[in-house]
Amino acid sequence: MKPKLVIVKIGGNVIDNPQSLDSVLGDFAKLEGAKILVHGGGKLATRLGEKLGIEARFHEGRRITDEAMLEIAVMGYAGLTNKSIVAKLQALGVNAIGLTGADGNLILSEKRAVKAVDFGFVGDVKKVDSEALRKLSHCGFVPVFAAITHDGNGQLLNTNADTIASEIAIACSGSFEMELLYCFEKPGVLENSEDEDSVISLLDAELYQRLKAGNRVHSGMLPKLDNCFRALENGVSVVKIGSEKLLSDEKSGTKIQP
Amino acid sequence: MKPKLVIVKIGGNVIDNPQSLDSVLGDFAKLEGAKILVHGGGKLATRLGEKLGIEARFHEGRRITDEAMLEIAVMGYAGLTNKSIVAKLQALGVNAIGLTGADGNLILSEKRAVKAVDFGFVGDVKKVDSEALRKLSHCGFVPVFAAITHDGNGQLLNTNADTIASEIAIACSGSFEMELLYCFEKPGVLENSEDEDSVISLLDAELYQRLKAGNRVHSGMLPKLDNCFRALENGVSVVKIGSEKLLSDEKSGTKIQP
Repeated sequence: MKPKLVIVKIGGNVIDNPQSLDSVLGDFAKLEGAKILVHGGGKLATRLGEKLGIEARFHEGRRITDEAMLEIAVMGYAGLTNKSIVAKLQALGVNAIGLTGADGNLILSEKRAVKAVDFGFVGDVKKVDSEALRKLSHCGFVPVFAAITHDGNGQLLNTNADTIASEIAIACSGSFEMELLYCFEKPGVLENSEDEDSVISLLDAELYQRLKAGNRVHSGMLPKLDNCFRALENGVSVVKIGSEKLLSDEKSGTKIQP
Repeated sequence: MKPKLVIVKIGGNVIDNPQSLDSVLGDFAKLEGAKILVHGGGKLATRLGEKLGIEARFHEGRRITDEAMLEIAVMGYAGLTNKSIVAKLQALGVNAIGLTGADGNLILSEKRAVKAVDFGFVGDVKKVDSEALRKLSHCGFVPVFAAITHDGNGQLLNTNADTIASEIAIACSGSFEMELLYCFEKPGVLENSEDEDSVISLLDAELYQRLKAGNRVHSGMLPKLDNCFRALENGVSVVKIGSEKLLSDEKSGTKIQP
């Protein structure tokens, strides 16, 4: 039987709230066995950008990363956010090691091709080195990933944290029984986006198609759920999406099924 | 016979000059066997602080690190500088992994006690986990350290990069034949501080005492050289100080001897 490996992705809403962050890290510390944390960025980059006079630009909710904004993302996410989380986890007895995809060449990306929109220094994941991750885990380290990767030619690239989590999960599914938990600002996928009590506890591909056809999943959810299904189709055993309660409450959130 | 491990410390003057940095990283890539890079900060933190309206404060040439300045140091050194170096080294075929002392609990420090001066969030190194470093090296990773450590209770601490280099060298001297190279803005220890051609090729403790007695080593050099002698007294085999030429030219710089 393969050993279990849990990947927890926490979003900006958790990062931006010190109480939420401490609570999630406490629950993450209690998870047994091999584990990896992937964190998004939160508002730090936007706030830093404002102070430095660099404007955040978005296209349909996705950040456009020019050179100045890439520097801010690397400073904020791979620097302050990542290392603060690592220090907190160490204080909780977790032997965290903070990483980007450039470190150990763990996640190689390619700069997104310019089509209708130039997203700038944004990377699409090409390859995760699961063997190197297995070695780190075997040495007792708990990887904590900031959503920065590189192209192998010296260029750092801003990368979607949800995608990083699912790509790591897929790459590691050969050696591990993979569980992927997405913590975000809602208690799960909602039947009715206005009603937080309408969490769908089990979402399969068929129901997802129906929700999409009925325009009942909003635009930000589509890439998230596509990531979930892609992970399930590529060897990941369990995928859940919900609030940070996912880590402590087995019944919380939405379980995604093929 | 113990395997050799080279630690190269590069200072702010190298970091601040893109050509120097590329040249040093190219030479570092060519070093054979196990190696570790430790980098200082350069002017990035001061520049960032200025843009963010946070004033850099010094006491006798040593930075005072309040909370805002610590955040800037973590962003600048552990974020942008560290990850840019890692990406560049990866492009040169070096399997670099960027680290602070908090990562993997590799360097534990304690906040400097407040005496006449409160240096703020500054750490004095207590313990280097040489066994974890040996494991990382054994897995094929080349550690690249930013000069940030932690206290084990969740607090990151700004730490002197020269000291980090010597403490790592001392801690690893049980398992490795250690060589420690300090690259800084001068070609070596100078007989006459005004004359760059007056490099002392061999400096032993006796000559150091004479230079000190004659006020011929300036204040910034004293802690640097004390670090060098401390390393030699604690198991490190070779210690050199000089320009970045140390990496490519055996005869360059000043060799320190007990």
